[in-house]
Amino acid sequence: MLIIGELINGMFKNVREAILNKDKQTIIDLAIKQIEAGANALDVNVGPLSKEPVTDMEWLVNTIQEKVNTRLCLDSTKPELIEAGLKLAKNKAIINSTTADVEKLNIVVPLALRYNASLIGLALNKKGVPQDKDRRLELAAEIVGFCEAENFPIKELYLDPIVLPINVAQAQSNIIFDSIKEFKLLSDPSPNTIIGLSNSSQGAKNRRIINKTYAIMSMLSGLDAAILDPLDKDLIDLIITSEIILNKQIYCDSFLEAYRKKAG
Amino acid sequence: MLIIGELINGMFKNVREAILNKDKQTIIDLAIKQIEAGANALDVNVGPLSKEPVTDMEWLVNTIQEKVNTRLCLDSTKPELIEAGLKLAKNKAIINSTTADVEKLNIVVPLALRYNASLIGLALNKKGVPQDKDRRLELAAEIVGFCEAENFPIKELYLDPIVLPINVAQAQSNIIFDSIKEFKLLSDPSPNTIIGLSNSSQGAKNRRIINKTYAIMSMLSGLDAAILDPLDKDLIDLIITSEIILNKQIYCDSFLEAYRKKAG
Repeated sequence: MLIIGELINGMFKNVREAILNKDKQTIIDLAIKQIEAGANALDVNVGPLSKEPVTDMEWLVNTIQEKVNTRLCLDSTKPELIEAGLKLAKNKAIINSTTADVEKLNIVVPLALRYNASLIGLALNKKGVPQDKDRRLELAAEIVGFCEAENFPIKELYLDPIVLPINVAQAQSNIIFDSIKEFKLLSDPSPNTIIGLSNSSQGAKNRRIINKTYAIMSMLSGLDAAILDPLDKDLIDLIITSEIILNKQIYCDSFLEAYRKKAG
Repeated sequence: MLIIGELINGMFKNVREAILNKDKQTIIDLAIKQIEAGANALDVNVGPLSKEPVTDMEWLVNTIQEKVNTRLCLDSTKPELIEAGLKLAKNKAIINSTTADVEKLNIVVPLALRYNASLIGLALNKKGVPQDKDRRLELAAEIVGFCEAENFPIKELYLDPIVLPINVAQAQSNIIFDSIKEFKLLSDPSPNTIIGLSNSSQGAKNRRIINKTYAIMSMLSGLDAAILDPLDKDLIDLIITSEIILNKQIYCDSFLEAYRKKAG
C-alpha cells in the first residue's frame, strides 16, 4: 500500500511555526522520520493560516527535497498552490486533490497531465459530502469519466470515498468499505483507492485504535493508498501484516523487519 | 461477537498438569481470568493425552461451574466426551464440533437437539481440509442441509471455514474471508460463522499481530464468533473497536470501558 505521511501540514502548530520562522530543520526532521517509519510519500500542506501560500509551498517543497528524495503529495484546494509545488517536485508528484465538479476537473486534470502527476479525486462536489454509497459511486464515476475523456491514465487516479468520523457518522463505515470495493470496478484497469485515515477518528478519545481497525478493514476492501501518521508504529506494523495476510507480500518469519528493510 | 476463551485445553501444559493433579484452583483461575477479559464462553478440552477423558471432562466442567456461571464450548472429536459435558452443563452449551461426514452428523446433531445446544460445524470431512472456497461452501451446505432436515435451528449453527496458518498457506486467507461472507448466504435466517483464530498464526514468529489483523478482517467479512486467547488485551480492544466501526455497538467516547462494563 502507498503510505502518505500526513505530518507536514500547516494545520499542526509545529509546522506552522516552522514555516513562519523559516526553520528548515523541523521540516527536514519530520520528512526523514516519516520516511524512516514507512511512508512512501509525504503530504505537503501550508495550512489554512498561511499568508503567502505560494511562497510557503515552494519553501516546504524545496526544504524537504534538500535532504529527502521522495514523492510529494501536494495538498491544497487552490490550483496555483499545487502548480507551484509541481514545478519544483523532483519525483512524480501526487495532486491532492480535485472534487467531482467539472470546473475543478477542467483545471486540475490538465495540470496533472502537464506535470505527469498522480491525482486524488474526492467523491464530493460543491453540494457537499454524499451520505450514501450510490451517490459516492456516481461522483467517482464522473471523475473517472472525465479523466478517460481527457486521456488521463486511470492507473494514476486515486479515488477517495471521503471518510467521516465514527463519532458523528457511525453508520457510514460500511458504506466506505463497500465504496472502496466498488470504486475498483469503475474501469479496467481499475482506479486506485485512497482514504484520509485520521478522519475516521476525528474528535474521538481512542483515536489510534480506531485508525488501526479502520485501516485493516479498508485494506481488506481493496484500499491502495492512505494518508496517515506513519509515526504510529503499531499502525504501520498492522498495515504490513495486512499485506502479508492478503498475500501481497511474501511471508517470512521476520516479515516486519523484511518489509522495512526493503522500503528503506 | 461471541468470544470463546481457548485456554482450558489439555494441550497446554498447565491445564494438563492441573487435570492430572486435580488442581481446581488453576482451572478456576483460568476460567475467571478469561471471562473478566471479555470471553462470553469457555472452550473445554481435556487434551490428547488424557487417559480418562470422560472423567476428566466431567471434572473440568464441574470445576469451572463451581465458581463461574458461563456457557461452555465442549471440545472433542469423541461424542461420548461431549455428551459427558452436556449432561452437566448448566447453561446452553456449544458442541465443538461436527465434521460434514454424514456418520458424524448422524450422531452429533441429535445430541445437540437432545441437550438444546449450539453446534459448530467444520467445513471438512474425512477426506481432509478443502483447499478452495467452492469445496468449503459445498461442505458447509451439506451441514446446513442436514441440520434443516433434522429441524436443528440454523440460528444455533456455527460454521467454521477452517483457518490454515499464514506461514504455510498464505493464499488461503482471502478464501477464508470470502467463505465467511458466503456461508452467511447458505440459508435464511443465516447460519453463524466461527473461526479458530490462533490457527492463523500457528508456527509464526509474530503470532499476536497476525491474530489481531486476521480477527478484524474476519469481522468485516461477517464473523459471528471466534475461539481465541482473551487474555490478549490489545486483541479484545481491537475486536470491540471493530464492533463500533461496524455499527454493532453504539459509539461513546469511552466505548472500550463501556463494552467491558456491559459484558462483566
